[in-house]
Amino acid sequence: MANHVVIMAGGVGSRFWPLSTPEFPKQFIDILGCGRTLIQLTVDRFKGICPETNFWVVTNHSYVDIVKEQIPGIPAEHILAEPAARNTAPCIAWACWSIRQEDADANVVVTPADAVVMNTTEFQRVISGALAFTQGHDNIVTIGIKPNRPETGYGYVKAMPLGTVPFGSFVKNEPNGTVPNGPIRGVEAFKEKPDLETAKKYLADGNYLWNAGIFVWNVKTITDSIRAYKPELAKQMDKMVPLGTVPFGSFVKNEPNGTVPNGIVQEIFPQCEKISIDYAVMEPAASDGKVFTYPADFGWSDLGNWQSLHEKLSKDAQNNAAVGNVHMYECKDCVVHTEGLKKVVLQGLEGYIVSEKNGQLLVCRRSEEQRIKEFSA
Amino acid sequence: MANHVVIMAGGVGSRFWPLSTPEFPKQFIDILGCGRTLIQLTVDRFKGICPETNFWVVTNHSYVDIVKEQIPGIPAEHILAEPAARNTAPCIAWACWSIRQEDADANVVVTPADAVVMNTTEFQRVISGALAFTQGHDNIVTIGIKPNRPETGYGYVKAMPLGTVPFGSFVKNEPNGTVPNGPIRGVEAFKEKPDLETAKKYLADGNYLWNAGIFVWNVKTITDSIRAYKPELAKQMDKMVPLGTVPFGSFVKNEPNGTVPNGIVQEIFPQCEKISIDYAVMEPAASDGKVFTYPADFGWSDLGNWQSLHEKLSKDAQNNAAVGNVHMYECKDCVVHTEGLKKVVLQGLEGYIVSEKNGQLLVCRRSEEQRIKEFSA
Repeated sequence: MANHVVIMAGGVGSRFWPLSTPEFPKQFIDILGCGRTLIQLTVDRFKGICPETNFWVVTNHSYVDIVKEQIPGIPAEHILAEPAARNTAPCIAWACWSIRQEDADANVVVTPADAVVMNTTEFQRVISGALAFTQGHDNIVTIGIKPNRPETGYGYVKAMPLGTVPFGSFVKNEPNGTVPNGPIRGVEAFKEKPDLETAKKYLADGNYLWNAGIFVWNVKTITDSIRAYKPELAKQMDKMVPLGTVPFGSFVKNEPNGTVPNGIVQEIFPQCEKISIDYAVMEPAASDGKVFTYPADFGWSDLGNWQSLHEKLSKDAQNNAAVGNVHMYECKDCVVHTEGLKKVVLQGLEGYIVSEKNGQLLVCRRSEEQRIKEFSA
Repeated sequence: MANHVVIMAGGVGSRFWPLSTPEFPKQFIDILGCGRTLIQLTVDRFKGICPETNFWVVTNHSYVDIVKEQIPGIPAEHILAEPAARNTAPCIAWACWSIRQEDADANVVVTPADAVVMNTTEFQRVISGALAFTQGHDNIVTIGIKPNRPETGYGYVKAMPLGTVPFGSFVKNEPNGTVPNGPIRGVEAFKEKPDLETAKKYLADGNYLWNAGIFVWNVKTITDSIRAYKPELAKQMDKMVPLGTVPFGSFVKNEPNGTVPNGIVQEIFPQCEKISIDYAVMEPAASDGKVFTYPADFGWSDLGNWQSLHEKLSKDAQNNAAVGNVHMYECKDCVVHTEGLKKVVLQGLEGYIVSEKNGQLLVCRRSEEQRIKEFSA
């Protein structure tokens, strides 16, 4: 089975204004100041998993040129240009229907474009393990990140206790009808973002993992699952990506911007229900005992806010993290991203975010970062 | 007698970095956000005193193009391009020697390019009064600003008590040999920037005025005074601006950048003693009883630092002064100048300077503004 990687890159990154704007959101920005944008880092960490010609990017139509520029190796027909944002279920459905059209036996990883992974070697080991599993199982694997703090900003996956319970139907491919040996475990349930007290319990329990939004499955499993749990969405995809009605290849190569004639996408995609893959497929599939998780620890962060960026960047002795030519005097606990400026001098700031891009400047207390969307309006 | 105005515009404005830079200093900036730069406001407030063709600007050679652009009405040969900064005495000497070459009977006002005057009507009344005085007297008039606070950042002029003492030699043109009636008073002495206690005494005394660096004299008086108190400088000027040895007009018109062949300026001007007009002429002339002052109150500020800019700008209810598209939340006592940015959001700042220009950003406590030169290095 050939591996394919689907990168979901449709977000607007409003919590990182002014660094991230609807015109040029965070996944396309070198937010870590390392010389590569987040989506480029995402592509980088999958090298070895599959060739660049097997990458797919689903993004808003207005970001297609940015994707082409930042990932020149990706086939143009693998950039799926959403005419409207419909959350992750229609996004993943479109990608997987398209992959299936090219390769009915494909093995697929779906990943957000904007997460950060510090240990890519371990990341590749985990993803390879998950892909080996979905090659032999018609089940879904979600990567579960081992929590190191009672984080209230992420959803959780509750794994079944280690090696205890045979999973019934979903283990039917295993020789002895039990859960496979090794690190992969059954998923009991998905949990919404908890309050702090609940998060502390999750951490103490040991069976709860962060839901990283990284999913592994073979293309038959996911398309069948969508058909089972969201039949309307499956019908819409059948119309939009009409499997087997046109010769593979020839059909898509003539279209400038995707795998099906644009008109059909324009018509159907915006009608799809706006729903996440978690609600649409993961939760009901977990209830049916069809979801596994691979507990992992590869320095993952969703990099969803300035707090997490401050954590990921290297800090000076006063706990300041800065990207750009930044000179700080009597500053402490600041996070600064001003790469577009020639020179920045900050004095007497404690616990502030300072960010500039394209003529827009934000200086605000880190404690107020949840108001950034308001500030940017 | 025709009036001439000499604008001294050679400063680098280092205390306003990054707004002001050596490449483009504050006198050429719209620092008040009113649509006119400081030097343009200076020209504006002299309209009616003399025609634009009688303006002179002495500035660093690297600012000549900026001057031409900002004051298009000034004759090119009236822009005196200093090859090096030599403080105000050589600057004023060059201008006055040049004026004398054009018009030996000229009546002259010398002014810095970067001060601010709020009441231009009163300003014109005072300047006209001073010019009327120097038309009939071979004496020097310095404009003395009536202090409203014990300011330690300015030098002071000590005026003689009102109408009491005949000035000896210098009043010889007065019909009755006494000081003239009216507001103009003799100057007893110039005083350096005082400490706070001394400044309070000055304020209480009532005879001390701020030295605004605005001087009025006829061209014969100042050139004679320089010859008397700084004979070496006068000799250098005789060489550099050789009065009467070439036909007026024709001589200067062929030179691109000044009133004398550039080579001579390049050679002589940098050799001139680096000294202020206050030390070179004002203080010895005051000792000789040859300096008068016109006490004035026209909303003058030398706009030398962010503190004075904060005072001059209009403030919101939280005492914030801002130039630019600035949105403030929970901010107080700030002064912001970010005209080059499209949008600025500030949150939770109290008593800060925020300034951006040409990709250089400063955020610092107002209490630390004396360190800005250090910050800009």
